[in-house]
Amino acid sequence: MNGCRGWLKIAGLGPGAEALITPEVSAALAEATDVVGYVPYVERVSPRPGLTRHGSDNREEIGRAEQALRMAANGHRVVVVSSGDPGVFAMAAAIFEALEAGEPAWRSLDIQVLPGISAMLAASARLGAPLGHDFCCINLSDNLKPWALIEKRLRLAAEADFAMAFYNPRSRARPEGFTRALQVLREACGPQRLIVFARAVSTPEESVRVTTLGEAQPEMADMRTLVMVGSSQTRRIERDGQPWVYTPRSASGSEL
Amino acid sequence: MNGCRGWLKIAGLGPGAEALITPEVSAALAEATDVVGYVPYVERVSPRPGLTRHGSDNREEIGRAEQALRMAANGHRVVVVSSGDPGVFAMAAAIFEALEAGEPAWRSLDIQVLPGISAMLAASARLGAPLGHDFCCINLSDNLKPWALIEKRLRLAAEADFAMAFYNPRSRARPEGFTRALQVLREACGPQRLIVFARAVSTPEESVRVTTLGEAQPEMADMRTLVMVGSSQTRRIERDGQPWVYTPRSASGSEL
Repeated sequence: MNGCRGWLKIAGLGPGAEALITPEVSAALAEATDVVGYVPYVERVSPRPGLTRHGSDNREEIGRAEQALRMAANGHRVVVVSSGDPGVFAMAAAIFEALEAGEPAWRSLDIQVLPGISAMLAASARLGAPLGHDFCCINLSDNLKPWALIEKRLRLAAEADFAMAFYNPRSRARPEGFTRALQVLREACGPQRLIVFARAVSTPEESVRVTTLGEAQPEMADMRTLVMVGSSQTRRIERDGQPWVYTPRSASGSEL
Repeated sequence: MNGCRGWLKIAGLGPGAEALITPEVSAALAEATDVVGYVPYVERVSPRPGLTRHGSDNREEIGRAEQALRMAANGHRVVVVSSGDPGVFAMAAAIFEALEAGEPAWRSLDIQVLPGISAMLAASARLGAPLGHDFCCINLSDNLKPWALIEKRLRLAAEADFAMAFYNPRSRARPEGFTRALQVLREACGPQRLIVFARAVSTPEESVRVTTLGEAQPEMADMRTLVMVGSSQTRRIERDGQPWVYTPRSASGSEL
């Protein structure tokens, strides 16, 4: 590959459905020599001659980022793939952490971030418009931050009356965190507040459940679930089947 | 159109570039009989025989939503278009407001929300990964909520140490709001905090500026600008040209 001009694109594959992958990302994958990412995401890219797929384990983000930067510096055309959007709790931050700490020459590499449909936007679309007004987005995993910071953010988000989207609510390794998060939210928002569990949206395993904080159980979420909690203004429209959930565009100030 | 089964799809056109429109949205537009939306967004859909484009003025969201629901109920295949994602400060919430207040029969209509690349995700991708850790998203327009609520949310977001994305920072009709928002943020976050102005990302008019709250001027934003303010952890990587901006995935708890 020497002599060629390499590049690195950090791309979002969207939540799962082919129809939610942007043409920009498809074009990058068609030109790539190497695809790098967490095994199940790399497997979403079809094999073809001239393309090497480098799948790695979860929690190996920095090693994977360095590998991708090194290959691009050596003239490869590298796409690092994330599920959803690469900038939301995914590989883009890891790449820039590795870039800042790594070889100075990497700073002149041709690097682009290609946005994708995040799990939050896909889940929101499936439900209606739960994020139709001001909202926040919190990673509930305490792998990379202290639990106390998560809890502080939950309380302040409730006080701000944001709608909330939660990534990585629950894993086998830390089932107790989400139980505690539900307790904090129940105290802060009351038992009637709407909560939504949107699992694997746009895939064959999709399932969606609308309930209240009073009825919510920790087991309703796993690592493939995007959880959303409404603001005080979020409403539910009954219909046959799954209700719609939306947050109106206007706020009266009763939240103050 | 009588006898046909109508439908309503509420679709996001992404931030501007064709390559950022999902295949799902393109397919919906190809099947539509009617496209409804704010004039500049409707004009992004190419005319063709069999397609009627209904452009309307800004601030006419509810009238537009009712028109779309009525046409779908009459058997039309209607796509309501928003820029970015329809669920983020766009038409999806307006449609569900009109649906809840409108004719009961509308609740059995075939309605789908088709997500799009939001301005926030596109701007974040262009900069690096400024939203790579917990963040919030606030509409700075006080057309539909009291200014005091915006200011309260800014203060709580700063206390939570969220990265922040701001929609609709400034219009000719209300230039003073953004001036005030910058003051509040400067008080709460200090003058060294990073701020980014990302205008019309992915269009020919794109421009991006990275500066600090101390240096920021209200005139750096207009209604086509997505403004982002970093958390206390957000970093800047210098390189030739535009610096990268990213928020690391980990937080030590020094924010507590």
